Amino acid sequence: MKLYTYFRSSAAYRVRIALNLKGLDYGSVPVHLLRDGGQQLLPAYREINPSALVPTLDDDGALIGQSLAIIEYLEESHPSVPLLPADALGRARVRMLALTVAADTHPLGNLRVLKYLTGELGQSEQAKLAWQQHWLHTGMAALEALLASSSDTGLYCHGDTPTLADCCLVPQVFSAQRFGVDTAPYPTIMRIHAACAGLPAFQQAHPAQQADAQ
Amino acid sequence: MKLYTYFRSSAAYRVRIALNLKGLDYGSVPVHLLRDGGQQLLPAYREINPSALVPTLDDDGALIGQSLAIIEYLEESHPSVPLLPADALGRARVRMLALTVAADTHPLGNLRVLKYLTGELGQSEQAKLAWQQHWLHTGMAALEALLASSSDTGLYCHGDTPTLADCCLVPQVFSAQRFGVDTAPYPTIMRIHAACAGLPAFQQAHPAQQADAQ
Repeated sequence: MKLYTYFRSSAAYRVRIALNLKGLDYGSVPVHLLRDGGQQLLPAYREINPSALVPTLDDDGALIGQSLAIIEYLEESHPSVPLLPADALGRARVRMLALTVAADTHPLGNLRVLKYLTGELGQSEQAKLAWQQHWLHTGMAALEALLASSSDTGLYCHGDTPTLADCCLVPQVFSAQRFGVDTAPYPTIMRIHAACAGLPAFQQAHPAQQADAQ
Repeated sequence: MKLYTYFRSSAAYRVRIALNLKGLDYGSVPVHLLRDGGQQLLPAYREINPSALVPTLDDDGALIGQSLAIIEYLEESHPSVPLLPADALGRARVRMLALTVAADTHPLGNLRVLKYLTGELGQSEQAKLAWQQHWLHTGMAALEALLASSSDTGLYCHGDTPTLADCCLVPQVFSAQRFGVDTAPYPTIMRIHAACAGLPAFQQAHPAQQADAQ
């Protein structure tokens, strides 16, 4: 398997964690979002992923975009070390937590959105940062409320083993810290983040550990 | 089952289609996003859904937020009339298409985002509309490319029966038409939209058919 990835992409980071948790070997193909006017926008990459976004998984020629679709695919094709619980309600909860990050929070901080703010909308760098922090806080407050209010929350987002939800939580915290968000109001998220940070699968998926971070 | 819904919410519309395709009976609980300063923001609703977003499914007391998590849950708990293909690659493709709408396109036109544009960022109504149209075009262009380039596309997004991807496509076209997006560049999307519009499950889920549309 090959993963088209960018070290700082939150969505690619999720998939790297999932691959590592499942112990799957893969090769990284770096797509630099800031070089060549954005390598994800080049025709060669658009043929691989018409959405012009990372990540893309190439599994023996089959191309899959969208981080959550990739992780669900890995779950079905490599079920050992499961990243979803066995029961339907548990699976629903883990997917709800994952989408709270992947659909409600992350898209608003995407590079192309930030470019539109400072480009078409003529916003300052300061207003851009305030936008990023606002939506990171909104998303993390929702995630904290979901986690803190449920007895299903364990050492990790759901019980005592990592799931798809943790694959989403950790990259979101990375972004929050990168953009100076005060994480003190989110003690449950930060407790789970610390637990994940102790695991090699998460450590090796960290942006700083990627070859293209150099 | 009860669905907390708002007639014009694209995410709630997806779930209504899925419930109808599966022939599941449910009661609608309207949450009006524009009344009482936004009924989704009231403490009573936040107890049901801490993200303060619609929809929420109440299945005998179990509360599930996030439209795609709800539809995956319905798929697992009521597998007849499947909304995902049987093979892992087909399922991955359908989820990729669904997320191209639900994660890449729809969140940027969410009501709270539009409010931030005209509020905190002081943008005009005209700039807000341009923003909506820009991200609708970006998302639909990606979806069109994914659909038009694949031999897996059939009468519907994936083969000749409706799937989760069609549950997402139709509400996205509704939004695009509502905000004056020219859909001529998206012939595959519009062909599939027309096929879906012929089915009672889609017709009955349409915003105009909901009790809270009055």
